[in-house]
Formats: sequence, structure tokens, C-alpha cells
Amino acid sequence: MGGDYGLDVTVPASLDCLKDNPDLMLILVGDEVLLKQHLAQALVDYQGRLSIHHASQCVAMDESPSKALKNKKDSSMRVAINLVRDGVADACVSAGNTGALMATARFVLKMIPGVDRPAIVSTLPSIYGHTHALDLGANVDCTAEHLFQFAVMGAELVKAIEHIDRPKVGLLNIGEEEVKGNEQVKAAAKLLENSSLNYIGYVEGDSLTAGNVKVDLIVADGFVGNVALKSIEGAAKMMSASLKEAFGKNLLTRMAALAAYPVLKALKKRIDPRRYNGASFLGLRGLVIKSHGGADVLAFKTAIQLAEIEAKNDVIRKVSEQIQLVLAQRESI
Amino acid sequence: MGGDYGLDVTVPASLDCLKDNPDLMLILVGDEVLLKQHLAQALVDYQGRLSIHHASQCVAMDESPSKALKNKKDSSMRVAINLVRDGVADACVSAGNTGALMATARFVLKMIPGVDRPAIVSTLPSIYGHTHALDLGANVDCTAEHLFQFAVMGAELVKAIEHIDRPKVGLLNIGEEEVKGNEQVKAAAKLLENSSLNYIGYVEGDSLTAGNVKVDLIVADGFVGNVALKSIEGAAKMMSASLKEAFGKNLLTRMAALAAYPVLKALKKRIDPRRYNGASFLGLRGLVIKSHGGADVLAFKTAIQLAEIEAKNDVIRKVSEQIQLVLAQRESI
Repeated sequence: MGGDYGLDVTVPASLDCLKDNPDLMLILVGDEVLLKQHLAQALVDYQGRLSIHHASQCVAMDESPSKALKNKKDSSMRVAINLVRDGVADACVSAGNTGALMATARFVLKMIPGVDRPAIVSTLPSIYGHTHALDLGANVDCTAEHLFQFAVMGAELVKAIEHIDRPKVGLLNIGEEEVKGNEQVKAAAKLLENSSLNYIGYVEGDSLTAGNVKVDLIVADGFVGNVALKSIEGAAKMMSASLKEAFGKNLLTRMAALAAYPVLKALKKRIDPRRYNGASFLGLRGLVIKSHGGADVLAFKTAIQLAEIEAKNDVIRKVSEQIQLVLAQRESI
Repeated sequence: MGGDYGLDVTVPASLDCLKDNPDLMLILVGDEVLLKQHLAQALVDYQGRLSIHHASQCVAMDESPSKALKNKKDSSMRVAINLVRDGVADACVSAGNTGALMATARFVLKMIPGVDRPAIVSTLPSIYGHTHALDLGANVDCTAEHLFQFAVMGAELVKAIEHIDRPKVGLLNIGEEEVKGNEQVKAAAKLLENSSLNYIGYVEGDSLTAGNVKVDLIVADGFVGNVALKSIEGAAKMMSASLKEAFGKNLLTRMAALAAYPVLKALKKRIDPRRYNGASFLGLRGLVIKSHGGADVLAFKTAIQLAEIEAKNDVIRKVSEQIQLVLAQRESI
């Protein structure tokens, strides 16, 4: 029910995914009457793979997380997460209110033992592969220990979904020299140096979009990670707008745009943020994928596909086991 | 003497500026013999407006700030800052080692009374005007009071060089709602709300490149500001590289590139980072402008022009007076 466009996006995206992947089963959680209207023929076409689970409420995009948690016990969001908790669903995908989704997921699913805080992890576009980064905004005022736990969880996720043995882990900082950084980052560097992770040291903000040659996973405080993510989105938007304006200027430039059209279209596709939609909540005892609220059909499809990949690769079990292992190693020292 | 290209960039840029602006006087500080070789004819052409001031040492780009401060008392950087302190020069422009420049400037010029820490301020490109931001990396672990002082100094700078009466000041945060943010930012917001500044509230990372319709000055901790700046640079580099690759793919796309060439060239010029080169150290009792180390002639010229603008508009005096005023207001409460 969530996101800026509700069922107009989530339903077509779901049906596209069912068409593309014969192994996929989807439970659409929300207003039964509305969903039935949207799904009429699809319920027949995808019998056995598509079902509706009724939820009488809906969390508004601007509702406060605490209010949603208290007053919306039968919201589509809450019910979908309940299905994950109960083992009925392998993952929950939502384009709804981020804060409410995180609060509800944390309340219903609980944290993986040993993890202090959940983190938001996502991939960032580049021309050579891509980089994963966390935390992108779940936490502020992180301690070194929090950053260390993010690194352990993130590395395990990258390992599982990218099939890399030892992902290269970097700490986001304002310089690569050892003396640089704030207190948390310097202390986190010490923890990472003494860990079994493939820690490569400090990286700067430009590494986020430089691909995976140097680094596979970038770890940051959620305040810093979120500002960096939004800054990148802003810069990309600014450049796209400039490109559009430059080609739209006059008759001559519009003719040039015609000639350049196939190239610009291919470029747009390549760095299309919709192909990177979907962020995972890491640290919970169940899979929850957050789609951008403004996602269109293609973008929401990407988020569903991410849920599929993470579920198939058993990310939650692997992250939990790795966290227990790291904690046990630490206790034995 | 500084920067990645030394005199090959700084000398031609200086001569270009002298040519463009008949009011400008330049003192080039560095190795006299080398400078004379580079300036032979220019010293005649610009007699009375161009001079050489000898300095026997040079700070390396990777030298530690403390070592530079201790061992390089006759470096071009130190001597140039001495000239500012002694009133011989109105501003110092350097493409050298940032850390050493900051440490030396702070040691030689001292802080404006009442200012706890100096900040680095610069402009960011956009398609509609531009935004100023600070701190871009001088400080980490900033308190709310530091952020407040940055806002007071930055607003005064923007007022002076952009000729705006009440620049719109925003605090960089991870959401625009009141509950969002880390401890420092929330406390800084309270200080700004109770100040005489034109404080517009929280802004997110994408505002940095969204122009000056909404906000003229964005205030952040130096760690966050630096990560955001580098993230924007990285995103711009990624998009440029993608554009280049897309147009270079095959014969057809290269023909399209020919047709699009004038447009791409105009676009490149418009968002050219060289046109935004030059960051000011704010909070010191003298003008110091830091150019990007990798600056070319055009970029270094921009940094010299920024020094001219700030000197002409008496930025240091105005910032000092404003800080005294704010402190006095506070004491009288």
C-alpha cells in the first residue's frame, strides 16, 4: 500500500516479477477489496504463486514512527513484517515510511543477538561494478563498536550476494592518512585492523561511486552515510538537469540531441538509480527491504529482486552466524 | 611554489590575472632564481604591479603540518602568510599542502577573538546560482557552538561577497523534520533559531548542489562537509566518465559525439569545477585562500580572483566585527 504511488506501482511491479521468475511466490499485504480489484486476472494466472493477505490499516508516509507502532497494529507494513516473523514469508518489501518501517521491523523481528543497532545498507552506482555502503541513515552518533558491527554484517551480506570470498572493507573518512578522522572512526579503524575482515583502511567520499576495484563495502556513521548518499543523488540530479538544459537550449542543440539520443538513452539506463533501488535493514532477525518512496514500476521491481537474492542466499542466517563467531572470538581472547 | 604543478601553473595564472585586472598587485613568494627565470619579461611588463619575494624553503605536498611548522620557517607558504600578517599583502593564495597551510596560517595570523576554530568555506556548483558551504574539512568532532560560529562567519562572508542582505542559512542534516539529526546538529539548531541570522532550518545533502533558491549557506561539521564534498566530486567524475564512455563506444556513437560536441563543451564549461576553485580559511585574522593542489591555470586564476573579491569586500574586518557583535549580544542577555 505504501510509497508515493501505492498499488499503481507495487502491483504491476509484483506481476512483472512473477512473470520473470517462476520460482517466486508473492503475498500482497493490504486492503483486500482494493487488491482484488487490481489483481482480478492475475490471481487466476499466477494461482498458487500469488495471494492476498488482508490488512485494514495503512501507515501514512509522514506518520511518526512511534505513532505508527502504537496505533497501526493492523497496517499493511506491520502485517507483512509479522508474516516474516512467523516464517510465512522469507522477506518483506515496502516502499512506505522509512522510520515507521524500521521501528516496526525492529519491534516485531527483534535484533540479532549481539548486534546493538540495525543499519541500512545499499549499493551505489559506478561505471565499474558497484560499491555497497552502510549505514545510510538508520543511526546517528555511532560508536566505534557500532561501526565495527556494521562492517561485520555488511561484509557478510556482500559475501553472500556478490559471491566474493573476502570483500574489501573501507572506513569512510576525510583522508587516507592514519592521523585523519574523528574519534569514532579512528577507534573503529583499530577494531577493524585487529579483526579477521579484509580491512583496506580509510576511503574518501569519492570512493562511494568509484566501483569495486578498490573497495567492496564502505562503512560509515548513519549521519555521514546519509548525507553522502543525498549529496551523490543531488550531484547526479544537477548533472542530468544541466545536460537536459544544454541540449534543449535552441534548435541547433535540439538537433544535436536527436543525434545523441541513443547514446544518452544508453547512458541514462546505465546509471539509472532505479536499477539500484532497494536498501536492506541489516541486524534484524528477518529480511526487510526498503524501496524508495518515489519508486516507479522498474525501481520497485529491483527492490523485490533484491529481496529474492538475499532470501535465496540466506543472508540473515549467515549474518547471524558471523556475528556470533566474532563475539565468541572476542570472548576467547 | 605549491600544488601539483608548481610554477608552471601559478606563474601563468598570476600573469593572466594581472592582465585581466589593472588594479591587481601580486607578490610571488618563492625561490627567487626560479621565479626570475619564469618572469623575465613579465617583471618589465607589469612593473610596479608584480614583484618577487624570496623564500628559501618549500613545504612538500605530503609533509606533516607540525613538521612544516617547526622546520620550514622560510617556506614560501610561511613567508607569504607573514606578508599578510605584516599588512604587506591583503591575502595569501596557495595551492600547497592544506594541513600545513592551515596550521601555519593559524600560528602566524592567530584566530579572530571569540572564534574557537577556523573553518574552510567554498562554493558548490549548481544550475541556478550556487551555494556556499562550511566547514569542508578543517575540523572534526565539532560542538554546537562551533557550528554556530561557522554560521555567523559564513553568513557574513556570503553577505560581503554576494551582496545579499540576509543570506539564507541551513544546517546540514539527514532529514528536514525537527526530530532528525545527531546531538550536535540539534543543539546547533536551537542556537541558530535564537540568533539574528536568517536561519531556514535543516537541509539535506542534495541541497549542496541545488543552487541558492532555497539556501545560500550550508553549515556542517568538517567531517560531514568534507565527505559530502568528496562524494559530490566522485559522483560528477562518475557521470563524466560514463558520458565519455557512452559517446566513445563505437563509430556511430563517436559520430553522435561530433554532433553533440558544442553542447557537451558548453555543459562542461558550465559545471567546470575549475570555475569553483578556491576555499577560504574563515576565522583567522587575515585572508588565506586555498587552491586545489591539482589546479590548472584556469583553476588557479579562479582562486586568485576569489582572494581579490574577498580583499576588496573587506571580509576579514566584517567577519571580525560580526563575531564581536554576536558575542556582545550574548553577554548582554
